[in-house]
Amino acid sequence: MIRRFYRDELTELEQELLRMGALVEDQIRASVRSLTEQNLALAKKVIAEDDRVDHMEMDIEQRCLTLFALEQPLAGDLRTVSTALKIITDLERMADHATDIARITLRLEHEPLIKPLVDIPEMGRLASSMVRLALNAYVHRSLEEAATMIRLDDDVDHLYAAIFRDLLEIMRDRPDTVGQATHLLFVANYLERIADHATNIGEWVIYIVTGERRK
Amino acid sequence: MIRRFYRDELTELEQELLRMGALVEDQIRASVRSLTEQNLALAKKVIAEDDRVDHMEMDIEQRCLTLFALEQPLAGDLRTVSTALKIITDLERMADHATDIARITLRLEHEPLIKPLVDIPEMGRLASSMVRLALNAYVHRSLEEAATMIRLDDDVDHLYAAIFRDLLEIMRDRPDTVGQATHLLFVANYLERIADHATNIGEWVIYIVTGERRK
Repeated sequence: MIRRFYRDELTELEQELLRMGALVEDQIRASVRSLTEQNLALAKKVIAEDDRVDHMEMDIEQRCLTLFALEQPLAGDLRTVSTALKIITDLERMADHATDIARITLRLEHEPLIKPLVDIPEMGRLASSMVRLALNAYVHRSLEEAATMIRLDDDVDHLYAAIFRDLLEIMRDRPDTVGQATHLLFVANYLERIADHATNIGEWVIYIVTGERRK
Repeated sequence: MIRRFYRDELTELEQELLRMGALVEDQIRASVRSLTEQNLALAKKVIAEDDRVDHMEMDIEQRCLTLFALEQPLAGDLRTVSTALKIITDLERMADHATDIARITLRLEHEPLIKPLVDIPEMGRLASSMVRLALNAYVHRSLEEAATMIRLDDDVDHLYAAIFRDLLEIMRDRPDTVGQATHLLFVANYLERIADHATNIGEWVIYIVTGERRK
């Protein structure tokens, strides 16, 4: 009976984690869209929703601690619970970066974009896909899916380097753009970090399956 | 006898965590010094030492998981072990940012600094002090020390804003500086994040003492 309760708890923990992941993925997409469309209402929504992400993190944290305290999870289950505790930190940081991006949308409120954004939305799509793929790999406990996802991080890094070069050139040619261009550089930096956090989740999946930690 | 073993394990866990914290504090100071003195050897040392930080994190992680698995820590001890698991993530991220700064030192190898750095080293001193204060608050389980440390984050934020304004002005006046100035902006951003991670640790101390999570 107690074991039954325990299995239910583990299932619920996993579902909560996936709900948090889906919200974070939405937040990333919405933040990039708010920037490219200069949609202030959407940016404000992203900032407001961050509280929900924080609450979900704390709720899942509490579930994990309760599971540790009331049960004595063994080997595989222990890894599931302790990695959940780590994965939510990565998810929460991603959501923080989404709000960082939304705040930049608000800052650029009164100025037209210095160029139509192409690479940044592309990077945003890649980064948010990585989050979904990482969570799929987690649900399926799939090494292959984790490895495929982690490889996408190289594409993100290439895009980041291209955006960096591009924006530096624009700033050199048109010094009046440095304010906005700097903010766009930070957006690219935040997206690169989001992809890094997705990679972390992939590494946690590898740990759950193999018991091996690698970085 | 088992309980005795368990207390020793908790003490050792705490000491390992403090050793990791001291190393991370050194890494932060060294990274900023490598930049201001354009000391490439020091920058390379910081980058090389990051592996040690990663290993310490994984080692402490393993200790925590073993403690969860073999013992059934109750209330206060449970909080100690589970927050150790969170604090090491913050410490590891700080060290990552120190290596980010050291990499920027290497990138600027062939160019003189566009200005003598004053605010950045000041920000570095503040951020690394926050790390030490956060760990002291942790050792003493002191709410007061945690709160004092967290208040320093405002000073860091003010310095960050000042550095940002300053560098944007330099870029506007001297477009040839945008490459380096952008890198310096990122350095300031990394230091601001390091201070945020120190603040996280302060919040974990508050949780250990009160059982209340706040952000």
